[in-house]
Amino acid sequence: MRMPSEANGPDAGAGALLKILRDGQARTRAELVQLTGLARSTLGQRLDALVSQRWVVPAEEAISSGGRPAVAFTFNRSARVVLAADLGATHARVAVTDLGTEVLAERAAEVPIDRGPEETLHWLQRTFEEMLAESGHTTGEVCGIGVGLPGPVEHSSGRPVNPPIMPGWDGFPVPEWLGERLGAPVLVDNDVNIMALGEHWAARPEADHLIFVKVGTGIGCGIISDRRLHRGAQGAAGDIGHIQVSPTLDVVCRCGNCGCLEAVASGAAVAARLREAGVEATGGRDIVRLVRSGNTQAVQLIRQAGREIGEVLASIVNFFNPSVIVVGGDVAEAGEQILAGLREVIYSRSLPLATQHLTITASDLGDRAGVIGAAVMVIEHVLAPGAADHVPGRP
Amino acid sequence: MRMPSEANGPDAGAGALLKILRDGQARTRAELVQLTGLARSTLGQRLDALVSQRWVVPAEEAISSGGRPAVAFTFNRSARVVLAADLGATHARVAVTDLGTEVLAERAAEVPIDRGPEETLHWLQRTFEEMLAESGHTTGEVCGIGVGLPGPVEHSSGRPVNPPIMPGWDGFPVPEWLGERLGAPVLVDNDVNIMALGEHWAARPEADHLIFVKVGTGIGCGIISDRRLHRGAQGAAGDIGHIQVSPTLDVVCRCGNCGCLEAVASGAAVAARLREAGVEATGGRDIVRLVRSGNTQAVQLIRQAGREIGEVLASIVNFFNPSVIVVGGDVAEAGEQILAGLREVIYSRSLPLATQHLTITASDLGDRAGVIGAAVMVIEHVLAPGAADHVPGRP
Repeated sequence: MRMPSEANGPDAGAGALLKILRDGQARTRAELVQLTGLARSTLGQRLDALVSQRWVVPAEEAISSGGRPAVAFTFNRSARVVLAADLGATHARVAVTDLGTEVLAERAAEVPIDRGPEETLHWLQRTFEEMLAESGHTTGEVCGIGVGLPGPVEHSSGRPVNPPIMPGWDGFPVPEWLGERLGAPVLVDNDVNIMALGEHWAARPEADHLIFVKVGTGIGCGIISDRRLHRGAQGAAGDIGHIQVSPTLDVVCRCGNCGCLEAVASGAAVAARLREAGVEATGGRDIVRLVRSGNTQAVQLIRQAGREIGEVLASIVNFFNPSVIVVGGDVAEAGEQILAGLREVIYSRSLPLATQHLTITASDLGDRAGVIGAAVMVIEHVLAPGAADHVPGRP
Repeated sequence: MRMPSEANGPDAGAGALLKILRDGQARTRAELVQLTGLARSTLGQRLDALVSQRWVVPAEEAISSGGRPAVAFTFNRSARVVLAADLGATHARVAVTDLGTEVLAERAAEVPIDRGPEETLHWLQRTFEEMLAESGHTTGEVCGIGVGLPGPVEHSSGRPVNPPIMPGWDGFPVPEWLGERLGAPVLVDNDVNIMALGEHWAARPEADHLIFVKVGTGIGCGIISDRRLHRGAQGAAGDIGHIQVSPTLDVVCRCGNCGCLEAVASGAAVAARLREAGVEATGGRDIVRLVRSGNTQAVQLIRQAGREIGEVLASIVNFFNPSVIVVGGDVAEAGEQILAGLREVIYSRSLPLATQHLTITASDLGDRAGVIGAAVMVIEHVLAPGAADHVPGRP
């Protein structure tokens, strides 16, 4: 997943220092010696390396504690840039951010993922290069590239694993392909995981345990456990679209089973039910438009979809006891109707202890959750304490 | 939860050193300087403190690297003892262990938890004191006390929260009560959490994500996410007994809802069905006896209970993607019959990616999982890097 070089990351041993400094507060050498327990000479060497690479800069105002004012150091959010992409089934959102996820440049485009990896990634490479140039940066300043894909991804290799809606992508070496062309390490994850990361970082940093449910063409969720992404043993965690909700219902799902959540409550399923009722609808955006215009059938169906998703989430609330459930994705833009159905079932079926302080809410970041999350994934990786100690290819 | 003093834990700042040394390998001062990045003088001070408190001892054989042999240091598992208790609805298991969870003394007894906290904890205090004396130790050597209770526990205070089968225990200050009498910090958690900890530590240390399902009078599970216990926002995670499995079934559960897993598949539920069929059975142990003696009705019912538990676990496998599911508790002693029903449903309902390397197995530790886990909870707390930096009451 880390390709092809981490030359743009901080040097080995700097992790603990950066972890302390990245909160943005300025600190003197003496304070840093105390906080890290490092010998003054070791601290000096590591601090010098970080300053020479511009990860850390002397703060403008020096700190005085009675005697001679001491120079303070602070984290430099502009030291490097991050390239982030959220590739969906048909849309893509791409951004250049700083190390605090501030967006320096951003684009959205129609890019059908089913055209295969070569065509999609060529477009992405070109777009990244154009956006870097437009925002006045170079590939030399890129510390990492984060990519979200609409299907299962093996976390250790960054390769898609049998993604159902991505013909040609199975096992494709996305990190190597992009990394060789752009000269920076590449991290890949599925779209719901990065949406959970983005929403947690930007809108709900205080939540220890968060579930981000994406309701779009399909249904899936990203899981934050103890402030960290829970990917599961095969990176398959969060695949709630194939949990059975209606065993008696004769709806065959693309997975081969009957009564899966996705087969009854996804954007695709609701659109199909609308068409059966003679209402024109092809996907999530049509449903949202119909709901907003007050179409009764659409409102009824989306509320029922909310109840069916609520059934699955009621079990998850008992099992996982999250503090926040965030609902995002195309269909979630239908807003309160879907949340109402969802809450109705969760409050009636989950245990009071688990729901008494539970927040159930729409996504704050909306369609930017994924691209912000892709940037967060890179920043967390590059600045993780000790990450640089295990850089492949370093002696 | 930590009461009343941590005088028997290692000194502040020793965390990082102990984390390295507790794997049991012997290391020289030079190796420890390199591994910690600490200044030689700081390392020396911390090492001296640990040696004077006997947390660390000089290794028997010195290490030679060509020149003069250097003294090596190693973690001392016998430095302190741990008191551990697993209190169930009617049985209790109590142990004295060393810092590697080796059991130095152990007892099992019939102790009905519904006699209330005072009577139960008086018994526990007496038993701990007797076992300490018998094993040749004193309360001065106790570094901590771990207690598992059969109900929800607020993790931060160690107090039971509305425990349904524990009259008189709601909000009772267990850590303060025991801590004042035995002079050591007390950690309390619910029984399934400590069973998950014990099984993970002793039998499945390689598993990143593990679910321990206890099937006894009730049904609950303990969750290990990324090698750490996932307790959830209110400490209520793992309460799967009240997930709905049979909405159409007219079985009212003690929680007030219908068709809960616990109301159809727990030891109490299966025993009730057996009695309806004219077979004498009051709980899990009777069911196990009947299954082992080949009683067809008991075998059928326990297999069906396995299927119902499997329905809930199939959803959890899709959501959480564990690497191991361990089944324990009284009823689980019925062994392969319950596992067969469980596997049947999980393999048919969960996604292939999530089940391809999934292990579904009976508990290795059996009825010792809880007491070993209670000891693990204490050891992890006392030896956690940095834990001693935040000791309440220390200047």
